[in-house]
Amino acid sequence: MNNAFDPASAAGLSERSRKLVERRTALLGPAYRLFYNDPVEVARAKGVLLYDSEGHEYLDAYNNVVSVGHCHPRVVAAISEQLGTLCTHTRYIQEGILNYAEDLLGTHADNLKHVMFTCTGSEANDLALRIARHYTGKRGIIVTDEAYHGNSDLTASFSPSLGAQSPLGTWVRRVPAPDSYRVAPDQMGPMMAAHVAKEIEDLERRGEGLAAFIADSMFSSDGIFSHPTDVLGPVRDVVHKAGGLFVADEVQSGFGRSGERLWGYQRHGIAPDIVTMGKPMGNGYPVAAVALSPDIVKNFGRDNRYFNTFGGNSVAMAAAQAVLNVIRDEKLQENSLRVGKMLRDGFAELAKRYEQIGDIRGSGLYVGLELVKDRASKQPDAAAAAAVVNGLRARRVLISATGANANTLKIRPPLVFSEANADRLLSETEKVFAAL
Amino acid sequence: MNNAFDPASAAGLSERSRKLVERRTALLGPAYRLFYNDPVEVARAKGVLLYDSEGHEYLDAYNNVVSVGHCHPRVVAAISEQLGTLCTHTRYIQEGILNYAEDLLGTHADNLKHVMFTCTGSEANDLALRIARHYTGKRGIIVTDEAYHGNSDLTASFSPSLGAQSPLGTWVRRVPAPDSYRVAPDQMGPMMAAHVAKEIEDLERRGEGLAAFIADSMFSSDGIFSHPTDVLGPVRDVVHKAGGLFVADEVQSGFGRSGERLWGYQRHGIAPDIVTMGKPMGNGYPVAAVALSPDIVKNFGRDNRYFNTFGGNSVAMAAAQAVLNVIRDEKLQENSLRVGKMLRDGFAELAKRYEQIGDIRGSGLYVGLELVKDRASKQPDAAAAAAVVNGLRARRVLISATGANANTLKIRPPLVFSEANADRLLSETEKVFAAL
Repeated sequence: MNNAFDPASAAGLSERSRKLVERRTALLGPAYRLFYNDPVEVARAKGVLLYDSEGHEYLDAYNNVVSVGHCHPRVVAAISEQLGTLCTHTRYIQEGILNYAEDLLGTHADNLKHVMFTCTGSEANDLALRIARHYTGKRGIIVTDEAYHGNSDLTASFSPSLGAQSPLGTWVRRVPAPDSYRVAPDQMGPMMAAHVAKEIEDLERRGEGLAAFIADSMFSSDGIFSHPTDVLGPVRDVVHKAGGLFVADEVQSGFGRSGERLWGYQRHGIAPDIVTMGKPMGNGYPVAAVALSPDIVKNFGRDNRYFNTFGGNSVAMAAAQAVLNVIRDEKLQENSLRVGKMLRDGFAELAKRYEQIGDIRGSGLYVGLELVKDRASKQPDAAAAAAVVNGLRARRVLISATGANANTLKIRPPLVFSEANADRLLSETEKVFAAL
Repeated sequence: MNNAFDPASAAGLSERSRKLVERRTALLGPAYRLFYNDPVEVARAKGVLLYDSEGHEYLDAYNNVVSVGHCHPRVVAAISEQLGTLCTHTRYIQEGILNYAEDLLGTHADNLKHVMFTCTGSEANDLALRIARHYTGKRGIIVTDEAYHGNSDLTASFSPSLGAQSPLGTWVRRVPAPDSYRVAPDQMGPMMAAHVAKEIEDLERRGEGLAAFIADSMFSSDGIFSHPTDVLGPVRDVVHKAGGLFVADEVQSGFGRSGERLWGYQRHGIAPDIVTMGKPMGNGYPVAAVALSPDIVKNFGRDNRYFNTFGGNSVAMAAAQAVLNVIRDEKLQENSLRVGKMLRDGFAELAKRYEQIGDIRGSGLYVGLELVKDRASKQPDAAAAAAVVNGLRARRVLISATGANANTLKIRPPLVFSEANADRLLSETEKVFAAL
């Protein structure tokens, strides 16, 4: 895993950290991972700032779940008030879920007329693909090379970024992500469509057929490929021609993250058959969703019921409604666009001085800096990325790394990140590059 | 589905309900189901009482999620306080998750030394079976005839209670639940073990082998079979002999529900290899868990990482800790035992006057009343059960029905249900039976 703490190096930690890490391993077992060479113990947070157990302040340039800022007072108040009023499930009539469903669907493509609620993005992708398979009668799923779509048995089976030891389904096919650093923009859409068409042919040869193509339009775990935005249209055409569904995984790219549009797929000018949402939807409250075309879920709803004990419960809906209201009222999409551009401009200045910065990508407050050994060969430099991530952590600024080669800095702060926060991030990053 | 509202009968509803139901269908689609012939619109709740949009009071004898009572002030306060302090994930060090993990594991069998956190019981069962399959290298899963273990692709595949149209995995085998109304108690354990052994043999013949047997020790969706409690021991022995794992699904039976012990499996005197927990764990806050033996997860943790964005987050842990504290401080397990017994005694009195009550089962505040056409044939009477469930709903008392034949009344109130609440439930039930 990128940016994972290696327990073998626990001896170098402070006594408090070492003891907590040991206790953690004993209690939570071996499947949990911490971030950084020197993991951070967090105690409280506000806006874009985190504080450790000794009161040190950290600038959070990583956490996209708390999208409207850590501990946003309106979200805290909405959840607390609903908790004291009612917290129950979808087998009773409640108006809150209907109001939110209407509000949410109003932001989406016209064909998406139904929304179903889950608790996590994994559950949303799991349900989306169950429905896609039921609708198409096929099993095949196509994803990008380093895609991540969830931790359930089904979604982990089409999440190659979980690593070579995590088994992919026999019905999963991978295509290269649109690597805009290495492929010319005008070739990208046709190339990706051709890759998808080839994999569809293979799935059909094996009798699997195509249920769905699913992608995050920012290709986050592949290395953040935000541009060009004419890539997914040709892919959708090929997928539809084969009778498959196009699923937009908006868990990373949705809710204004890109700055340009509320939903990542909108940047590609397409209307997906199914859209899944998660992470920032409740600013940390577990809530996620699947929006879809009525024709796709019609027979699934006849043959199956769907009930999720906590999905769409009264408090989840209050949390999600508060978040959507805050995104609009505080113009966070606009802020994401403005401050994101400022960050990329600032990194472009840095790139004039530091050869390791091979490429600067992203949209809004989703920024990827690909680090390379030299700009001619574009050879990935994972060591430099790890050094910057941990160097910034030592300076109390939190980011991480992404991509197959772990050489792309992943900068993805809460959407309330201000210009002053951006200045601080840029100047700290410069100091770290200077010391490399 | 048992006790589902049929949208075809919407014409009989109040104008407000009809409009909300229509809006719901339009927004949420066809896979959602409401309870009762006349669905209840809920607006607020407190303790064991729910209130509809017109202010009418309902006695809640059904909801097990809000186990310590609707809107329990200590749980609301704990969640609200943590929401205002910090809500983040497990890739930073936090003490709260360690304290809760230690507290929770301390209530379990000694072999269960690790706990992993998810958001829902479905996610917990999905993860448990992923781990079981990784550990054993086998795929087969054995469940009871009408088991329900979740809504993910994997867990739905071994949840026959979802109905004939919901496909079971080819590697799933079913065994009869321990129907104590029709089989003598001393035959039950050996009979169930023999059924499991036969299915293991079949799984091995097909090259699948056995990964796990999973059961809810109260057999909730099979019809609530709480006794005898010497059934699961022989099953575990057969499962272990075949190299499979015994998974206790405590989503329904855990956290003191049975009154007798904190965990349902403890009533059977066994130590499972894996235990899954959910529903009441956060009193409505989405939090669930998997506890397991270290040897089982050792290689899974080496080959896979497990990260769940919201699972084990700061607020989930605060909620779960508050619930566990309240269960202990308010002696809710003891209350469950006492009031549960009082309920069963009261229903036994009713059974003297109403022939339809064929059997009274359960432990603590989990009560099953099996309704039959006559006591000699023991022929299930689903119509009577539906009439009682809807009759009670008309009298503003909420219960539901369960079992393959939908003829067992499912009574499962919050654990704070008092003797006065039990009196009210009994007297309302008597009125409904008198009017059948």
